[in-house]
Amino acid sequence: MVMTLKDVAERAGVSRSAVSRTFTEGASVSDKTRAKVEKAAAELGYSPNALASSLTTGRTKLIGLVSNNFHNPIFLEVFDLFTKGLQARGLRPLLVNLTDEVDSENSLRMLRAYSVDGVIVASSTLPAHFAEGFKDAGVPVVHSFGRHSASPKVNVLGIDNIAAGRMAAQTLIDRGYKRVAYLGGPKSATSTQDRFAGFEKVIAASDLEMTVSYASNYTFDAGRTEMQRLLQNRPAEAYFCGDDVLSIGALSAIQSAGLSVPRDIGIIGLNDMEMAGWANINLTTIRNPVAQIIAASIALIAASLKGDSRDPEARLFDCMIIERGTLRPLPS
Amino acid sequence: MVMTLKDVAERAGVSRSAVSRTFTEGASVSDKTRAKVEKAAAELGYSPNALASSLTTGRTKLIGLVSNNFHNPIFLEVFDLFTKGLQARGLRPLLVNLTDEVDSENSLRMLRAYSVDGVIVASSTLPAHFAEGFKDAGVPVVHSFGRHSASPKVNVLGIDNIAAGRMAAQTLIDRGYKRVAYLGGPKSATSTQDRFAGFEKVIAASDLEMTVSYASNYTFDAGRTEMQRLLQNRPAEAYFCGDDVLSIGALSAIQSAGLSVPRDIGIIGLNDMEMAGWANINLTTIRNPVAQIIAASIALIAASLKGDSRDPEARLFDCMIIERGTLRPLPS
Repeated sequence: MVMTLKDVAERAGVSRSAVSRTFTEGASVSDKTRAKVEKAAAELGYSPNALASSLTTGRTKLIGLVSNNFHNPIFLEVFDLFTKGLQARGLRPLLVNLTDEVDSENSLRMLRAYSVDGVIVASSTLPAHFAEGFKDAGVPVVHSFGRHSASPKVNVLGIDNIAAGRMAAQTLIDRGYKRVAYLGGPKSATSTQDRFAGFEKVIAASDLEMTVSYASNYTFDAGRTEMQRLLQNRPAEAYFCGDDVLSIGALSAIQSAGLSVPRDIGIIGLNDMEMAGWANINLTTIRNPVAQIIAASIALIAASLKGDSRDPEARLFDCMIIERGTLRPLPS
Repeated sequence: MVMTLKDVAERAGVSRSAVSRTFTEGASVSDKTRAKVEKAAAELGYSPNALASSLTTGRTKLIGLVSNNFHNPIFLEVFDLFTKGLQARGLRPLLVNLTDEVDSENSLRMLRAYSVDGVIVASSTLPAHFAEGFKDAGVPVVHSFGRHSASPKVNVLGIDNIAAGRMAAQTLIDRGYKRVAYLGGPKSATSTQDRFAGFEKVIAASDLEMTVSYASNYTFDAGRTEMQRLLQNRPAEAYFCGDDVLSIGALSAIQSAGLSVPRDIGIIGLNDMEMAGWANINLTTIRNPVAQIIAASIALIAASLKGDSRDPEARLFDCMIIERGTLRPLPS
């Protein structure tokens, strides 16, 4: 049986308001009353109700954590870091799964109904206006892994996807590839668009040939399916894949076709999720500093909760190449 | 700006109580008042506050979803299915990450403070008393992937780990292996203990040799490290690994040592997580019917919320062998 404030008030022989004040930070209550209430609460095994007290403080300490890709293993790392980081600050993640969800209004209504103190949108594929909807509704929001812009409407934290695309292109040029390709994620995702923009710009200024195609989503199956299609018609020498899970799908298709990586085809990914370093995957990739982005996202949400009302900012994090075994070595 | 019940009452020219009653299921309010309130709410963009109304109904519709392994990719599937299933019933998962957490009292206090309507403990490694602690505190609880017992104190849903161990042993016997081994998860995990019990029983009744060892956790790194150690001293012909992620770690160690699967060493896992079917992993494994277990877990929690107070039950789900490429074929 769950004990309520009323039970404690009755046992302590004080008013409900006295119990409420005892458990409200900064509220006034006599030492004598406090002692009675604390004794009764201990005897009954009563815990102050965070939600009831939220009606007084206006704070629930609930943070909506919204994602739309539960098939990309990097999100297990993302959820791990967000939940641990939020818990360490006394905040609690209400997980919202938008996979297969088309109506963003619905999640907005739901999170408002729960009076979340803030929302973290963790997605590189949801459009900017999704996160902006929370702001318009007066809910502090951070868009993690979102698209950079010069004057963002909400806090956006992520990598410079254009620079990452340039980095991938230069890496392939340096290794002497002549016919390269971009195998992007969904064409509608800003991350896919921006990675391509950077990649294309550097390749266009070189003498390399380039082709481009898109997978239907950032998933293993989508990467494998698209690479199977590409293999039917003179594939490129090396592919910049939109992310690591697409890369692993592409590797699988290449191996199933009896070809070898990097001997026959080279692959470079993006993210450096835990699995990219597994010895049977050993993917050369561009590291997305996920832990830094998440720590900064949590700090920004926490600052909003404390009343910080600075203008929203777009914060860019640096990437770096992680050399493993899926590209030919640099010429010596 | 977030609109409150008070704002709606003022705009509608009615009492706060009238607004509250308008948005409380089954509460009495005149048609005229309801119309005024609904008009004002629509104009202000007000959503009824689920948490405030919880103080009246005693229901928050929040469900604590507790896990302690964010490094095993199967948990991404588990979170996906739980969040979608709970959302479909209007319930909301409050995700609790117990990785690195030693004090279970702490999470109990926290979830009570949030007045969760119920708790789902999703773990094969947390001991039974962890879930039971919620029951003792009066909170409905389901332990998914927990250990079966004849008279459980809380609802426990999972596979018959002993039967799964027997199934693995018989599969190896049928394929003509003579020296087999169990590479378990953490020795303290009931899943590891029970899988071994079933495996050992069948092997003991055969003429096969058996060895046993344990990884420190159900993770890739733990499986790889333990297999690296085993390879230094005449490894077995085939290993039943405690789960799929351990199997993939073991595969990686075997390949790094220049050996081939299944030619030199056979591997059979348990779970059949999405990744087990990836063409570059192609793991022979025992399927854990995770989707069925999760659907049943949600149904049980939802029934508790509706006042169902039947005795707790332990429900066992059948496993099946999924044949892929990591064991030698059956002799013809």
